[in-house]
Amino acid sequence: MTRLGPNRYGKAEVRVVRVTRGAGPSGADVISDRNVSMSLSGDFSAVHLRGDNANVLATDTQKNMVYVLAQRLGAAPPEAFALALAEHFVSTQPAITRARVAVEEYAWNEVADTGHSFARDGSSVRTATVVLDEQAGASVVAGVEKLVVLNTTDSEFWGFAKDEYTTLPETTERMLATEVRCWWRYRALDTDWADAYRRARSALLAAFADTYSYSLQQTLYAMGERILAEVGEACEVRLGLPNKHHFLVDLAPFGMPNDNEVYYAADRPYGLIEGTVLADDGPPEGLAWT
Amino acid sequence: MTRLGPNRYGKAEVRVVRVTRGAGPSGADVISDRNVSMSLSGDFSAVHLRGDNANVLATDTQKNMVYVLAQRLGAAPPEAFALALAEHFVSTQPAITRARVAVEEYAWNEVADTGHSFARDGSSVRTATVVLDEQAGASVVAGVEKLVVLNTTDSEFWGFAKDEYTTLPETTERMLATEVRCWWRYRALDTDWADAYRRARSALLAAFADTYSYSLQQTLYAMGERILAEVGEACEVRLGLPNKHHFLVDLAPFGMPNDNEVYYAADRPYGLIEGTVLADDGPPEGLAWT
Amino acid sequence: MTRLGPNRYGKAEVRVVRVTRGAGPSGADVISDRNVSMSLSGDFSAVHLRGDNANVLATDTQKNMVYVLAQRLGAAPPEAFALALAEHFVSTQPAITRARVAVEEYAWNEVADTGHSFARDGSSVRTATVVLDEQAGASVVAGVEKLVVLNTTDSEFWGFAKDEYTTLPETTERMLATEVRCWWRYRALDTDWADAYRRARSALLAAFADTYSYSLQQTLYAMGERILAEVGEACEVRLGLPNKHHFLVDLAPFGMPNDNEVYYAADRPYGLIEGTVLADDGPPEGLAWT
Amino acid sequence: MTRLGPNRYGKAEVRVVRVTRGAGPSGADVISDRNVSMSLSGDFSAVHLRGDNANVLATDTQKNMVYVLAQRLGAAPPEAFALALAEHFVSTQPAITRARVAVEEYAWNEVADTGHSFARDGSSVRTATVVLDEQAGASVVAGVEKLVVLNTTDSEFWGFAKDEYTTLPETTERMLATEVRCWWRYRALDTDWADAYRRARSALLAAFADTYSYSLQQTLYAMGERILAEVGEACEVRLGLPNKHHFLVDLAPFGMPNDNEVYYAADRPYGLIEGTVLADDGPPEGLAWT
Repeated sequence: MTRLGPNRYGKAEVRVVRVTRGAGPSGADVISDRNVSMSLSGDFSAVHLRGDNANVLATDTQKNMVYVLAQRLGAAPPEAFALALAEHFVSTQPAITRARVAVEEYAWNEVADTGHSFARDGSSVRTATVVLDEQAGASVVAGVEKLVVLNTTDSEFWGFAKDEYTTLPETTERMLATEVRCWWRYRALDTDWADAYRRARSALLAAFADTYSYSLQQTLYAMGERILAEVGEACEVRLGLPNKHHFLVDLAPFGMPNDNEVYYAADRPYGLIEGTVLADDGPPEGLAWT
Repeated sequence: MTRLGPNRYGKAEVRVVRVTRGAGPSGADVISDRNVSMSLSGDFSAVHLRGDNANVLATDTQKNMVYVLAQRLGAAPPEAFALALAEHFVSTQPAITRARVAVEEYAWNEVADTGHSFARDGSSVRTATVVLDEQAGASVVAGVEKLVVLNTTDSEFWGFAKDEYTTLPETTERMLATEVRCWWRYRALDTDWADAYRRARSALLAAFADTYSYSLQQTLYAMGERILAEVGEACEVRLGLPNKHHFLVDLAPFGMPNDNEVYYAADRPYGLIEGTVLADDGPPEGLAWT
Repeated sequence: MTRLGPNRYGKAEVRVVRVTRGAGPSGADVISDRNVSMSLSGDFSAVHLRGDNANVLATDTQKNMVYVLAQRLGAAPPEAFALALAEHFVSTQPAITRARVAVEEYAWNEVADTGHSFARDGSSVRTATVVLDEQAGASVVAGVEKLVVLNTTDSEFWGFAKDEYTTLPETTERMLATEVRCWWRYRALDTDWADAYRRARSALLAAFADTYSYSLQQTLYAMGERILAEVGEACEVRLGLPNKHHFLVDLAPFGMPNDNEVYYAADRPYGLIEGTVLADDGPPEGLAWT
Repeated sequence: MTRLGPNRYGKAEVRVVRVTRGAGPSGADVISDRNVSMSLSGDFSAVHLRGDNANVLATDTQKNMVYVLAQRLGAAPPEAFALALAEHFVSTQPAITRARVAVEEYAWNEVADTGHSFARDGSSVRTATVVLDEQAGASVVAGVEKLVVLNTTDSEFWGFAKDEYTTLPETTERMLATEVRCWWRYRALDTDWADAYRRARSALLAAFADTYSYSLQQTLYAMGERILAEVGEACEVRLGLPNKHHFLVDLAPFGMPNDNEVYYAADRPYGLIEGTVLADDGPPEGLAWT
């Protein structure tokens, strides 16, 4: 005999761009450029077992709600937007007991002082994820992704475990680069989302720059620790750091030195370091990461 | 005060191609074309907190092990390969108490009866994921991804919940397409991996084709149920089905009918249906999906 | 002083799926799954210089025409579709003197004998490109892309030019893999497009498999020559062959042999071989490749 | 009978990162992060027809040269790098009569005043392409790609040609967005590449911002014209501008206004506008764009 296990459904990747006219500094327009995905859970046995859609709010309707709330909420930060969207689904549809909303936000920089002309800022992507459950309440996780950083020095790697399959030489000078994926969980909902995001992103960059690194794990921990230090509103940081290897090219065959000058950037394989840094006094994670 | 939470690290996306000469039907070569990623967990506080790498088996060494085992294991199926690799790390490195190995396998079709010439079969990707823990033992999950399927008929969608934001009309005739991501958990390690994979993939395709569908959720459940029926070795199926929307084009402005003939294939947004089908008598999932 | 040079515009990537019900073998549905891009040229000075759109057929209208012709032409091959679309623009809009239409077609395989259930065939993409000019007439180029092929043996590489920067060792045994991009120009418009395509693709695969290769250039020429031999309707073949390097892994540090068994598949950099094979008696290329 | 037509070959996508220590402002390191592709032409009949590699400089050797020149040239701009690389091949290998070198350069921003820590600037990619021919001499084309820009207003689209398949309504207020691909050809080799690039990129952005647009073609021409005005060293500009459609969402079904506030960003299809702007007195293009 078989039975239905955990399940959810929703509309993914609704690409909504909200222009809030004149709401920016000096009266410039504000662009909220987002990719919104949502997943709903609840009483959905009938649709799986019999194709009975009575409890199913169509994903097309979910998409409509993204647009409706974009109109209503204007330039509200993505965390507030995600909370409102999740709240809408759970509070209006009896069958829906939980909603997860994930937002990616793409930044734009004003061109000169035009007020209306913008260039996309591809230096990172901001994320916000809300899980709102009828019983468990709401959690908010913010993050930054696709932030590529590199230290040209101040990184070593030696003293690692060796076995008969180890061929990597130790080094006291290497380039360290990674494409940061970092998310932090907030303690509460009465947070200044924009300000906390700004501080977290800065802390992360500063920790990367300041840490004299003996391993990417050490850098990871330093990043998480710094975010918790600078953003008291957060209680947990999770990071995924691909080690974007830059290997020194051997120029000896050509009679040339390579004094940490010429590297090739490898694609695959890459090291992948994943870890969590926790505040001692944080509330339990609940459903935040589901 | 902060502390280290869950963490893991490893080499990702090792692209290894093993040719087992003459091992195929009629003496053809066998190609095992794989993308192997591994994550190791254990006693890694020192490296995070102090940059002390004594417990760290370099990801470069992990990469070497992929090649070494590829040589030793020849054309062994990806599940067996992943088990051997995970076992190696956990059994040889005291600090490592858990290993997760994920393999993607790309299929090739022999050209004519050449024995040595092949064309890549892009119709799907086979996956195998092993989690091996010193305490909890080993689990094996196999899967198929990037399998794009489409029914030109036998799909309806109506009777769904409506609210004031619902604009989607009901339909008794629609095209149904999805890019299947499906994974099933095995009950035990003494499984004929190749044969079970073949049966699971066939069952999935058959269920998609046979199900007269009133919702993608119903199709999802049918797929999972069919796999469990045809593959007794499996006890749980998880599926992620993006609804690759094909919308009927409105040709009325041009005085033309569109009797379910002309569709446009939309990219984003898309519905995303995720669900689990469980055998009643399966062993607990343990760490299988971590 | 500045002036307007060559220019063109159009709608790109119209994803149209045409289902021709019951038109296939044994009454199965036929799926024509295409990505259609078009570029129009002609008298477009006013729009560039003054923003005067009087001569501009909106790209939205172009998109509509793709759907209209999909309805009218049913399961006609992509070459015929592209010709009809180009002809429409040039013949109905006085300002438009030239149209280029490029079609990608994705193949589907029927699941069992269902007649209505299909799995996408990811083994290659078929292309057709038409350039139709009021003065110069029409040309048709067909092609195949994303066809990944591999020979496990019968490839050598030695005797190449050496200079002081050469470190590559010679080899009499290597794996040869490429992702074929191949296009052939037809002599005339009264061609059986479907049959010619089938023969060209087969010829290409056969030439790859049969050629004992001393260089990828040699294999390229053999492919082109074979297509011209098997497809008399074609008079020119252009190929782009990335050398998808598979490097033998050095297992000696582990005391293991590697008798052409274990390779790693590199991503970048890659060799890229581009070349043309011509029939001596072909008509001039005209605008075919523009 | 068949014969060999135009052909070329080379190494593509060599990912080289050159760090020039202390060479930046305030003694910061300078990162030259590049993706280098080269194609060589000349006397290559023997290798195509007989697999005779005597004239073939291995693509592996070409790759080596990228590293060698990176070491030698330090922080030289990509145009100078490409010229030197092309010159090397043509001057040292008798069989090679022409070299094409294409460079992509990725920008990095220093983090604070660290001197050694950088974040990748994803706002655009700089390109430089050199064609150097034994007979025809050298040409240099520079460019910028992946520069996404958006005007929230100052764009209209009306007065376009209408036929029976036109359904697009006219508009006097639309959002205009594009991902700029722009290349300009230089008149001569004694150019200050870095300064010219900076001026060209600024001119392009300014023209986009300043142009009240009635069509994307008009904006394209304005961009090209402005570059030629601000960069006298350039004599020709080519642009490819995908119209990244942002469609106003219809909120009327929900009783809400949408006064140019809520848009959805479409992926496909998209308009694609391609055009050239020429200085009247430029030298002939020769092989620059081949």
